[in-house]
Amino acid sequence: MTTPDPERPLSKAAIKALKDAVGAGNLLTEAADRWPYGGDNSRLHAPPQAVAFATDADQIQALVDACRSHWIPLVTRGLGSGTTGATVPDQGGVVLSMERMNRILEVDPDNRMMVVEPGVTNQAVQDAAAQHGFFWPPDPTSAAYCTVGGNLAYNSAGPRAVKYGTPRENTLGLTAVTGAGRLLRTGVYTTKGVVGYDLTRLLIGSEGTLGVITQATLRLTPLAEGKRTLQAVYDSMDAAAQAVSRIMAQPVVPCALEFMDGRAIEMIRDYSQANLPEAAGALLMIEVDGPLAGLDDAAQRVADAARGKGNLSVALAKSENEVKALWATRKALSPALRRVAPKKINEDVVVPVSRIPELIRGLESLGRRHDITIVCFGHAGNGNIHVNLLIDPDDARQMKAAATCLDQVFTLVLELRGSISGEHGVGLAKRDFVGRELGAEVLGLMEGIKATFDPAGILNPGKGVPPAPQ
Amino acid sequence: MTTPDPERPLSKAAIKALKDAVGAGNLLTEAADRWPYGGDNSRLHAPPQAVAFATDADQIQALVDACRSHWIPLVTRGLGSGTTGATVPDQGGVVLSMERMNRILEVDPDNRMMVVEPGVTNQAVQDAAAQHGFFWPPDPTSAAYCTVGGNLAYNSAGPRAVKYGTPRENTLGLTAVTGAGRLLRTGVYTTKGVVGYDLTRLLIGSEGTLGVITQATLRLTPLAEGKRTLQAVYDSMDAAAQAVSRIMAQPVVPCALEFMDGRAIEMIRDYSQANLPEAAGALLMIEVDGPLAGLDDAAQRVADAARGKGNLSVALAKSENEVKALWATRKALSPALRRVAPKKINEDVVVPVSRIPELIRGLESLGRRHDITIVCFGHAGNGNIHVNLLIDPDDARQMKAAATCLDQVFTLVLELRGSISGEHGVGLAKRDFVGRELGAEVLGLMEGIKATFDPAGILNPGKGVPPAPQ
Repeated sequence: MTTPDPERPLSKAAIKALKDAVGAGNLLTEAADRWPYGGDNSRLHAPPQAVAFATDADQIQALVDACRSHWIPLVTRGLGSGTTGATVPDQGGVVLSMERMNRILEVDPDNRMMVVEPGVTNQAVQDAAAQHGFFWPPDPTSAAYCTVGGNLAYNSAGPRAVKYGTPRENTLGLTAVTGAGRLLRTGVYTTKGVVGYDLTRLLIGSEGTLGVITQATLRLTPLAEGKRTLQAVYDSMDAAAQAVSRIMAQPVVPCALEFMDGRAIEMIRDYSQANLPEAAGALLMIEVDGPLAGLDDAAQRVADAARGKGNLSVALAKSENEVKALWATRKALSPALRRVAPKKINEDVVVPVSRIPELIRGLESLGRRHDITIVCFGHAGNGNIHVNLLIDPDDARQMKAAATCLDQVFTLVLELRGSISGEHGVGLAKRDFVGRELGAEVLGLMEGIKATFDPAGILNPGKGVPPAPQ
Repeated sequence: MTTPDPERPLSKAAIKALKDAVGAGNLLTEAADRWPYGGDNSRLHAPPQAVAFATDADQIQALVDACRSHWIPLVTRGLGSGTTGATVPDQGGVVLSMERMNRILEVDPDNRMMVVEPGVTNQAVQDAAAQHGFFWPPDPTSAAYCTVGGNLAYNSAGPRAVKYGTPRENTLGLTAVTGAGRLLRTGVYTTKGVVGYDLTRLLIGSEGTLGVITQATLRLTPLAEGKRTLQAVYDSMDAAAQAVSRIMAQPVVPCALEFMDGRAIEMIRDYSQANLPEAAGALLMIEVDGPLAGLDDAAQRVADAARGKGNLSVALAKSENEVKALWATRKALSPALRRVAPKKINEDVVVPVSRIPELIRGLESLGRRHDITIVCFGHAGNGNIHVNLLIDPDDARQMKAAATCLDQVFTLVLELRGSISGEHGVGLAKRDFVGRELGAEVLGLMEGIKATFDPAGILNPGKGVPPAPQ
């Protein structure tokens, strides 16, 4: 990562152009004002040269034009909950904060859709949808403080994706401003449509490098009538991973199938009101939802699949309080990890479900080889495992070992037909590894697409997709 | 549509290059051999200058290179069941038939996926998946004689899409040969993944204009344990359309919600073993699937929503024979229509579900105004209505009226926030109307994407996306 001089000033002409674009009241140029917009939830930080706010697409078009004229990078940002540095303006430039474009423009329960501005939080969307008996499936743990724009930028999902899909499966259309300053509308207001190329899905997951999303038409799903929450404890990670495979091979698809390894259990034992056996080497939290009629039967089938070699217990939460306690356990994990190892490396790999046991065994072996504590948890139903390397950044030997270890983790994941990112995206953190997953031909096409949408290369330069090898 | 001279010969050098690419035994150049590859299920026809077969991606890469060197259009074709002329080589060139690339390469039930060659029929995929308790959701009526490659090319779905989605929601990855002759692999073997831009969905629905798909990794869904089939009869199309809205606004999502208007009922009355009331002005066929426990309850809820103003009856099929009879009714419709009006115009529009009543009223009014019989049926749960204009192509006055009528149908659909194609695609038939739905900015971007994938412009030229207005 290049470290730009945060004090490098924009030219007066550039500042004037930016002010003209969004209005003087919507541009921050003081160092102290810019600082908070330089970081995300990775440890990367670089203050922008200016921070702009917008309240409508016209302002964004004008801003893009100004950035293009003055060759200034433009980095669009939600609320900064990303974990890969994707919104860190490491090449300087303007951070466009979408926090003031947070309106819900339309809720249309009859057509199961909702039109929102990208700065709205995921939680606000869920609340508005729930009033009509619906929800929007993507549910990152950060729902309360992440924006829909961010969810779309990284195709971020969460536990429910195993049954209900990611933003790509739950977004009907977008409006966006391209790097050429043009406003485009993609997609449809309907659940089918095949006129022209699918630009909606192309923008989703593109990490702000192709356009600035100004509106999103979200596809809503009816809230299930009921839910059953199960906790299954295993004597080893391997046994739990085998159970995940069994659960996903039977017809009842859980709406959450979360995984936590033994070290993760140790860390949150104090926070959990659930009694976990001392011998617990891994834990699954499973939710099944659907119409009340048949729900107990569905939960029973999943429970049956959860049982098997190495299973110590399968418990059904008997009260709302027990359900809350179980989820509190899971939600306490990220902060607990951060407390133990504030500079942990949190990876977000994904492998086919049947390969999870191999992944877990491989990770255990890598941890031993490099003498690094690795804590795993995540969305096992999608094979999406968050691999946490607990490291002390002041220990140079350990940092070196971690780098080698991480490299080998990615190699292992790709050998297992996986992907180096399930839902966090690439940003700055993983950009150097993308070339291992995507071939040169694919990178070349992505470069061409980028040039089509953003000929001047001003939109979030240096993020997501690396240049194709020459 | 330009009408090329089918006898226009390719140069000897070109024919040699094509033979070198795929092998002499895999190239047809005799007029009689070429003729059958000139048409699809539209009435458009233009014989190619040559027909090539391939059995692997290497041959396709060599073929693309040969076409590029000699500037020959390359039109990829499945089994020709498309309805828009998308595989009709109206600019001459080579038709690449995928009929010999029809292998199922891998069925992986543990990971709920299947890897296939594009020439395999949809039905063969369903049969192979069913052996493991799964299915692939896209289910065009033509399943027995349409290929998965064709389904992907037009994002073709069918009745089940209302619950289970289209190919875009049910395909994990692809391999394809670009117009530059490069082999690329897109997507993942997992249900999550966000590394780089989504080229998988970009290729799906691109009608062979960006690349030749050589393999597809399909996402499988567990077969439901049971199904209930309902038939609801209404006194008018409007009443049925209102019922569709009510059904889609409650939480139980049917796995089929098919619609047939009064004229369609008349046409297939003879084929139906179901007793339809004389006053039947419209009919819904509804299927609900899921685990057996709770299934009757779910069917009951849908039946309740189906009742209301204008409803004459709601009947639950009581035997497997009754179910078959109901579906035979629906499946007899397309051939029946074709018999009555062999040159009918079959449109494939889609509107938000709540706007179906307005669409239907608008269509009735347009039919009266232009004195054209319009028969409507289709996948109402997605708002995807097949609008059939029964015309006599020898009646010049009627043909003129039909053209005006169709134009007004599209205007109406777009006013209702719909799309001019739900699942048949654009091909040649609708290309002139695409510009009304997609803005100039969007068309410009699509042109850029096309140039990135196919710099020489040899892949299915003139289909799908029209040039951006200058």
